[in-house]
Amino acid sequence: MKLNIEQSKLAEILETAYLAISPKPTDPILGNILLIANEDGMVSATGTNLNLTIHTTTTANVETSGQVALPAKLLTDTINNVRGEITLEVENQACIITHNSGKCRLIGGKPDEFPTLPKGENPIEVNLSAKKLQAALEGTLYCTNGDETKLVLTGVNFKIDTNKWQAASTNGHKLALVTGSLDSEYSEPIDFTVPGKSLGELNKILSQSADTSVCNILLSNKTIEFSLPNTKVISRLLEGEYPKINSLIPRTFEYEFTLERKGFESALKRVSYLAERKQKVVKILWELEATQATLYTEATDIGDAVDSVLMKPATSHSENISIGLNIDYLLEGLKHISTDEIVVRCNKPTQPVIICPMGGLLNQLYLVMPVEIKQGFEKVNNQSTKTEASTQPEPSTEEVTDIAQATNDSENSQIETSSLIAKDTTKGKSTSRSSRTKKEVATA
Amino acid sequence: MKLNIEQSKLAEILETAYLAISPKPTDPILGNILLIANEDGMVSATGTNLNLTIHTTTTANVETSGQVALPAKLLTDTINNVRGEITLEVENQACIITHNSGKCRLIGGKPDEFPTLPKGENPIEVNLSAKKLQAALEGTLYCTNGDETKLVLTGVNFKIDTNKWQAASTNGHKLALVTGSLDSEYSEPIDFTVPGKSLGELNKILSQSADTSVCNILLSNKTIEFSLPNTKVISRLLEGEYPKINSLIPRTFEYEFTLERKGFESALKRVSYLAERKQKVVKILWELEATQATLYTEATDIGDAVDSVLMKPATSHSENISIGLNIDYLLEGLKHISTDEIVVRCNKPTQPVIICPMGGLLNQLYLVMPVEIKQGFEKVNNQSTKTEASTQPEPSTEEVTDIAQATNDSENSQIETSSLIAKDTTKGKSTSRSSRTKKEVATA
Repeated sequence: MKLNIEQSKLAEILETAYLAISPKPTDPILGNILLIANEDGMVSATGTNLNLTIHTTTTANVETSGQVALPAKLLTDTINNVRGEITLEVENQACIITHNSGKCRLIGGKPDEFPTLPKGENPIEVNLSAKKLQAALEGTLYCTNGDETKLVLTGVNFKIDTNKWQAASTNGHKLALVTGSLDSEYSEPIDFTVPGKSLGELNKILSQSADTSVCNILLSNKTIEFSLPNTKVISRLLEGEYPKINSLIPRTFEYEFTLERKGFESALKRVSYLAERKQKVVKILWELEATQATLYTEATDIGDAVDSVLMKPATSHSENISIGLNIDYLLEGLKHISTDEIVVRCNKPTQPVIICPMGGLLNQLYLVMPVEIKQGFEKVNNQSTKTEASTQPEPSTEEVTDIAQATNDSENSQIETSSLIAKDTTKGKSTSRSSRTKKEVATA
Repeated sequence: MKLNIEQSKLAEILETAYLAISPKPTDPILGNILLIANEDGMVSATGTNLNLTIHTTTTANVETSGQVALPAKLLTDTINNVRGEITLEVENQACIITHNSGKCRLIGGKPDEFPTLPKGENPIEVNLSAKKLQAALEGTLYCTNGDETKLVLTGVNFKIDTNKWQAASTNGHKLALVTGSLDSEYSEPIDFTVPGKSLGELNKILSQSADTSVCNILLSNKTIEFSLPNTKVISRLLEGEYPKINSLIPRTFEYEFTLERKGFESALKRVSYLAERKQKVVKILWELEATQATLYTEATDIGDAVDSVLMKPATSHSENISIGLNIDYLLEGLKHISTDEIVVRCNKPTQPVIICPMGGLLNQLYLVMPVEIKQGFEKVNNQSTKTEASTQPEPSTEEVTDIAQATNDSENSQIETSSLIAKDTTKGKSTSRSSRTKKEVATA
């Protein structure tokens, strides 16, 4: 194998293939990137960790065709640090890389030990705009469960029904859902879950793709292949049934508030320093007449804070509502919304709160569970600052409600999907606090 | 205490005082910043970890004078996240901070428990341009020993003699020296060592100071006070005699090479990936006739690299010289030189190599010890690439030479300062390799 190639082109395919390389490969050959040069002037780079395979191609001046498996990190680092025209020449398992101020020799693995590209049988084909797929990943990946023992919850679940599609993820306390429509119609419903890690790498590749690119998806029994111009991303699918996400989302809402995303984010950050370290709870009082949301936090023996942001209510209710929420969860949701304005929807203080972008490329929804807050929560604010806080009631102890539990009105009863989602997570959380009294959050 | 102040002014003094706060204070009061408001409209912020104290002032609209000690991180984070005019009002030990969208209450420590500013007796006064002091710190801090058990070596040593001053640091394998002159003359030589940590914080403050600022230094028996407009940095001094740095630096050099700093840096980075992981050695062949420096690295079973940069030799010698050096040490030295061109000076392959900026604000010098390199070092390069390497001899196994050891020509003898510098460091290093044969580095 011998070829000449512009550094930027080689660096690009290496960076892409490198995304699939595990930092601790289970087999030494998986620490390599496979380079294949064809006489038609195409060069491909492939990286794999067996769960995820990335194969990408570019053009080069190929003098002699051939293949070589070279240490992925070393090769990528080396090529990233040279400039101009590069020559690659392979003799046995070694590759000589010549650039304008020197050369280096890398000793590689045996190319025939490198795994072949996985091929699924009888695939179903779906086409989706690359930018919409990327928006769907941005809007869901952050709600997957990072804990590898949670299996199916570590992935993003996709559903296709006639010409509608949706992507969803949840870790039991927060949930994200993105929906859109397709150009084709599918007669049978399709349901599959892709590992979050694979999608995280796909997301990086999609972010580099052109606005007009289409992603061709081939779905088989055990694998999924995402094809973009010059790049294929092939991932295994996660086994197991995904929780019935849609039944967890309330269909009607008693309250709806529109507010400016950045202003809300800043106010949350300001009060976050005075929330308890462990369970960062903010109590938000939605004041209908004053058209403002007032945020309260309190940290024992340290202090407390109150802040407010303007909002537009759209509700027939005349009573204010006060809800306890985890600040980190809220900030995480807001970080993954790109529109200037957001819509917050809720019912009772113990039921899920929904945050949606106002506009945007796709229908997007973030669901977060409320936290019960303790009696006398903003007492210190009242005593010391004589602010708007003085008219507030005083709710209860902190306890993040589990999604499945809270979607049902009657306390402690569980709806059908609860065991699928976070039964053990909930148990783990409650044990340490089981001695505390839980109280209903009071509404103002 | 009650005052109004612009957020940016309060944030600035808090950020500065915060530099002295330990992340794990030995006494709870040391986790606070002391704020003092005087009726003359001055507000000061003081932070201390007992070794280092920072006291800084600004102006404010003070309604009532007073003082308060508030949790440093919480206060700084809070003030950094609000905007516009802020009101601070203290009642007992709590401070109410009111800003344009809300307020918060912080509970502090007892201000009378806060340590008073250290005051040295009979201080000697020295004045130095703030920018020159900053350049001296930039040029020396990176060679201090980070190991707290090394006591005096964790600091930067300063010497003043008549109207000359110098700052020096060493960890036993590398050494930095910066020299300059003073406007005043001192009849008695002055010698003191300031902890690197204190100087690191001082450096941050100096980097914000105006180009024309003068730093007034008051040196006492146990403490040193650096005064800048509005800010005082007071540090304890390190006890113990600092190694006699100047005797370790060769006075004459057989070789001198001028080369472009960035090009040298890039070439070193390129070959660094193919240097052995643990002891990243590069062999540099200074080719007088070809006016280039050729860099060789080699990693067993992985590969090897060769690169070259142009250089201008200034030497009466006609023989090339080949020296083994640690790449990380070289890159670290180059990172702390700001001029476009550098000068490399050396004698024998076992003796210290000196790197200086070509020009610059102060006289600056970096000394790094060579590494012995093993026989057949760039053999693979020769066989496989048929480059310039083919004319090279083949040196020996890797061993960083200790500064003290190498300044003396005769092998293994030690000069007077060697025990002060790195006796135990050297021992630690050699133990693991004592079974290998050491060989003299061959010169080409």
